[in-house]
Amino acid sequence: MATRLSDTDRIEGFSDAVFAIAITLLVLDLSVPQPGRFAAGLLEEWPSYLAYLTAFVTIAGVWVHHHSVFTRVSRAEPAIVILNLFVLLGVSLVPWPTRLIGASLRDGELADQSASLVVFAVPSVILALAWFTLSRALVRRPHLLAEVADTDYMRRNARRTLLTIIPTVLATGLAFFAPLAALAVYLLIAAYFLATSARQSAH
Amino acid sequence: MATRLSDTDRIEGFSDAVFAIAITLLVLDLSVPQPGRFAAGLLEEWPSYLAYLTAFVTIAGVWVHHHSVFTRVSRAEPAIVILNLFVLLGVSLVPWPTRLIGASLRDGELADQSASLVVFAVPSVILALAWFTLSRALVRRPHLLAEVADTDYMRRNARRTLLTIIPTVLATGLAFFAPLAALAVYLLIAAYFLATSARQSAH
Amino acid sequence: MATRLSDTDRIEGFSDAVFAIAITLLVLDLSVPQPGRFAAGLLEEWPSYLAYLTAFVTIAGVWVHHHSVFTRVSRAEPAIVILNLFVLLGVSLVPWPTRLIGASLRDGELADQSASLVVFAVPSVILALAWFTLSRALVRRPHLLAEVADTDYMRRNARRTLLTIIPTVLATGLAFFAPLAALAVYLLIAAYFLATSARQSAH
Amino acid sequence: MATRLSDTDRIEGFSDAVFAIAITLLVLDLSVPQPGRFAAGLLEEWPSYLAYLTAFVTIAGVWVHHHSVFTRVSRAEPAIVILNLFVLLGVSLVPWPTRLIGASLRDGELADQSASLVVFAVPSVILALAWFTLSRALVRRPHLLAEVADTDYMRRNARRTLLTIIPTVLATGLAFFAPLAALAVYLLIAAYFLATSARQSAH
Repeated sequence: MATRLSDTDRIEGFSDAVFAIAITLLVLDLSVPQPGRFAAGLLEEWPSYLAYLTAFVTIAGVWVHHHSVFTRVSRAEPAIVILNLFVLLGVSLVPWPTRLIGASLRDGELADQSASLVVFAVPSVILALAWFTLSRALVRRPHLLAEVADTDYMRRNARRTLLTIIPTVLATGLAFFAPLAALAVYLLIAAYFLATSARQSAH
Repeated sequence: MATRLSDTDRIEGFSDAVFAIAITLLVLDLSVPQPGRFAAGLLEEWPSYLAYLTAFVTIAGVWVHHHSVFTRVSRAEPAIVILNLFVLLGVSLVPWPTRLIGASLRDGELADQSASLVVFAVPSVILALAWFTLSRALVRRPHLLAEVADTDYMRRNARRTLLTIIPTVLATGLAFFAPLAALAVYLLIAAYFLATSARQSAH
Repeated sequence: MATRLSDTDRIEGFSDAVFAIAITLLVLDLSVPQPGRFAAGLLEEWPSYLAYLTAFVTIAGVWVHHHSVFTRVSRAEPAIVILNLFVLLGVSLVPWPTRLIGASLRDGELADQSASLVVFAVPSVILALAWFTLSRALVRRPHLLAEVADTDYMRRNARRTLLTIIPTVLATGLAFFAPLAALAVYLLIAAYFLATSARQSAH
Repeated sequence: MATRLSDTDRIEGFSDAVFAIAITLLVLDLSVPQPGRFAAGLLEEWPSYLAYLTAFVTIAGVWVHHHSVFTRVSRAEPAIVILNLFVLLGVSLVPWPTRLIGASLRDGELADQSASLVVFAVPSVILALAWFTLSRALVRRPHLLAEVADTDYMRRNARRTLLTIIPTVLATGLAFFAPLAALAVYLLIAAYFLATSARQSAH
């Protein structure tokens, strides 16, 4: 008997809610300057706006990609439910390094900023591994997929998502001597992932 | 093949969740007075209640307008998904200047209050530009619209939403010498946008 | 043409999201004691647990009542959308006095506690007025109701919700000399409203 | 007349939103280290990451279990709505002890850590009692269940959920001399509950 939990609609609804909350909670990471110097303080905070934008695009990309994947899944099994929870774990962590980056660029030293940017890679690596294992699990379970051709999509998707680890780790290296450059690279990776996921979902 | 991501239902569900979270997070911007003078402190905080109400009406207006637009869209494409994310970016930023206004009216100087009210215009300008480009993108893609007549609606909507920038920028000028008056003007703009969007959605 | 915005489903979905967020944000109002005396500090905090429970039951009651009302509404109009936003304004404010009560019972004087408990009545009064005007607006618009008999329900509901102002204002008087007793009365009012709304929704 | 409130879909939608918000709010409990020692500070915070993971798995388990239960319920009654609110009360409390554990492991003494871990058991005990009474209420109301055989499921589920109190209380005892070991036991209980609920939902 197919249960309602197995409905991918329910998994997608819950996941969408987590994505929406995580993307909206980012605003709590934008800080309030010292009284008496709001104008100057707000301008100096520009790196935390870049961190906000990077986190926003990262979560938006996961949302678009999630639909691109689950539109090809017609039924679920316990393993899929559990692996999807790993995706949600990765997304729900994103506001945390965003807050670290803001705090370290405001008050911290270079070492603090590097540490924050390395932490920013943690959700991305969790997400890459979660997508990889989820896609591979779906390759091994063709009976859960909407169409036969979707096995090819999942095989390519496993490879594609695993490969995102490479630029992420390279940016992590950059974080040790040029934190803002590393942040800019994260933004480019996230924007590229968003754009390719949006294109994929249309075919 | 129409994918599930392309379903505007899914875009609307995710957008509604972001609107609901942003509008409810505003309550975190209402502060707790110093012990020993709650009654006086709470009364002195009235400008931050005005900021709360203005932000509430702003987000409510976007919610109503979003349905007015998407009720006329029957299918989506990657460009529409991306442009809708710009709308969400604008909405999810609203709680931040609301917090700035509360803090600057409590502890800050005139310059701090002016800066906060200028920042309040940022989400409004992002929203105006996002609605404009989204409406224009839909004018150029009549195959995504529910009815032929909706192209006229989108053309008018592009103009109407772009025009909201004018009173917003005028209020920004007012913010430099009369911050509370600027806040009152923002509230009027938001209330007018909410009322006209509610009327539009009924036809 | 009936637009999708006019669908009460969409109004209910957005409202439910606001209710769910407001009820879950209450947890942020529970505080962390001073290091070195967690056990004692946590026990002394019991009045803020009572405030949490009261706020939880208040929002839960609005959720149940909202469905009891909207299950009888088959179509919406701009006025209904706007009046429903007043309900949401009332609900989204609830976490704020809850935080005030916790803070004033922890560090404040009797006057602070009284002020906080008077503020707790504000969302309740907003909600009573919002339900009253929404119910009256539906009495005047029988074409929006699912059945003819629902006009009677709305007429009774307008009276019933307006009457909740009486015990709320009485509890406000009690807040000036016995804040905790006032909080207990609020809890009883909220529990009674929840119970009667749950019963109503079943008929 | 079956009302829309009685629809279990609406109960599930509201509950899912509460679960999604609670699980995403956990990220606010992850702290920002002192400037000048981010790298060291972030490594020392590992017990709060364990607390985060434990809370995440706890809420995820309730989400999966909730569907496993409600997929067998075809109609609701006021008592079911109220008892489901107790489940939501338990879930919405989880972020609070998670914050306590992080704070006490950072700055507190052994007694503070023990107190925090005892508080972590409170939502679990509320959840166990809520599931038990909800399942028993459904055993006594077979007309609400989708199939006759579901009465057996609810009877077993009442026993199973009540039994989770035993390991939880044992871990509470452990909290008084080995807080981190108690946290690890909570994680194992939550992971076991998640795994068994996921398996149950598939049959």
